Amino acid sequence: MKLVSFLDGPRLGYGAVKGDGIVDLSARLVAEAPKIRDCIATSLGKAAATVARIAPDLALADVRLLPPVPVPEKIICIGVNYADHASEMGRTAPPFPTVFTRFADTLVGPGSDLILPNNSAQFDYEGELAVIIGRRARHVRAADAMAHVAGYSCFQDASVRDFQRHTSQFAPGKNFPGTGGFGPWLVTADEVKDPHGLKLVTRVNGVERQNGSTADMIFRIPALIAYLSSFTTLNPGDVIATGTPAGVAAGRTPPPWLRDGDRVEVEIEQIGLLGHNVSAEG
Amino acid sequence: MKLVSFLDGPRLGYGAVKGDGIVDLSARLVAEAPKIRDCIATSLGKAAATVARIAPDLALADVRLLPPVPVPEKIICIGVNYADHASEMGRTAPPFPTVFTRFADTLVGPGSDLILPNNSAQFDYEGELAVIIGRRARHVRAADAMAHVAGYSCFQDASVRDFQRHTSQFAPGKNFPGTGGFGPWLVTADEVKDPHGLKLVTRVNGVERQNGSTADMIFRIPALIAYLSSFTTLNPGDVIATGTPAGVAAGRTPPPWLRDGDRVEVEIEQIGLLGHNVSAEG
Repeated sequence: MKLVSFLDGPRLGYGAVKGDGIVDLSARLVAEAPKIRDCIATSLGKAAATVARIAPDLALADVRLLPPVPVPEKIICIGVNYADHASEMGRTAPPFPTVFTRFADTLVGPGSDLILPNNSAQFDYEGELAVIIGRRARHVRAADAMAHVAGYSCFQDASVRDFQRHTSQFAPGKNFPGTGGFGPWLVTADEVKDPHGLKLVTRVNGVERQNGSTADMIFRIPALIAYLSSFTTLNPGDVIATGTPAGVAAGRTPPPWLRDGDRVEVEIEQIGLLGHNVSAEG
Repeated sequence: MKLVSFLDGPRLGYGAVKGDGIVDLSARLVAEAPKIRDCIATSLGKAAATVARIAPDLALADVRLLPPVPVPEKIICIGVNYADHASEMGRTAPPFPTVFTRFADTLVGPGSDLILPNNSAQFDYEGELAVIIGRRARHVRAADAMAHVAGYSCFQDASVRDFQRHTSQFAPGKNFPGTGGFGPWLVTADEVKDPHGLKLVTRVNGVERQNGSTADMIFRIPALIAYLSSFTTLNPGDVIATGTPAGVAAGRTPPPWLRDGDRVEVEIEQIGLLGHNVSAEG
């Protein structure tokens, strides 16, 4: 299934994509799974049966797509998780995953613009594979970790480089509002043959800027879940942005920073394409 | 006022301390301020009038105190914000505030134990002044910043040093569950004459380990709010832990790491005393 969260007028709902429509699961599973997090945690089987049985309730074109999980409790990002990107950023491959976090108000769905800050000229793209947790994980071994994954999505970890480099800590450069693109949908894990064999491409105004493979992650998903769950509890709906391959603006001379009006896309094989317009902070 | 959040049996409430009792504001302002965040944002005047007028509803001894804001949207911590602590950690005073974040599930109130992780032997204390935001702040100038402060509390930014130093990013060492002590209450800003003139002492088993003054912050509260609000929106109930002075275990030889059964206290002049027992992860 491809699960989406959406605004249908003022109403927040979630459902599954079927053709060019949406089966409205939030309406049909209202008692057992009022929110998409509930569906992910407990009701994916019933959701799949529902989607197989009935026709779409809504046209995709008639709703505004939100981040698949609109307000995750935890958004955990992994830095320098591809050797070629570590090298272009002047960092060495680390002995442990490099972990930073985003606030939920940084997220934007495919129906919204990425917001170019008005106090920085160094706005950069980072296309990434997002992992969405389906089952609580605490002190989970790598060998058991994949059972805790609900599915995958695209993530645009757009970064404000000067703020990211103000000190040793990345948080300021990663927490501007409207800089975390997430979507267009959550593809459930059963539909992704091997999450470590996916081509990942980022384009700006149609020009390819990043072209990598999730095969090249330094810390793969099981290792990430094992490490993260050694210090925090991962809950259904939590998001892990698994890092970006080489090709970001900061690694190029001169850096082609994102500008007002640019179009940026992350496309991941078997997952989908997440596109945003970039618009200056109003 | 000293505002507290509490469990009265299974019921989550908030109120104001009066003598050895609590005026239950959550019951009395239920329509306009069902949560302490609402009270902070809109109803401090009415709360003060209510507290002045009536007798306590509950005895402090009969409830379990929670973190004053039990689930803040944002918990933002400032690293190396006292020159003597920067020096003992081998870091230089930075040109901008050093910012990292905590998840809300790291918080523990004065009625709960700090949790010693079972996968680290390097559990450290950090006594800090916490600032609680009362009014939305985005792109706020330092000169205007103090109007956005609701009040102050004590913070125990307990740190798992090996995880903090796994990579450049502090997040893992600062996000173990039950390692962020917060309380015992929120002292409203009108009762604190000068938040930059407060003695701050941390004790372990009665022995003084940190003795500093909030006068020695490298970045003071107005500068912190100005910087933070330049990249994120601060909302009522959000917490800023303003950093710790010298004297942490990691700065001593050999380091006196916290152990199961220890008692750790942060005491801040005009604010109060936050004490926790340390107990090993079960």
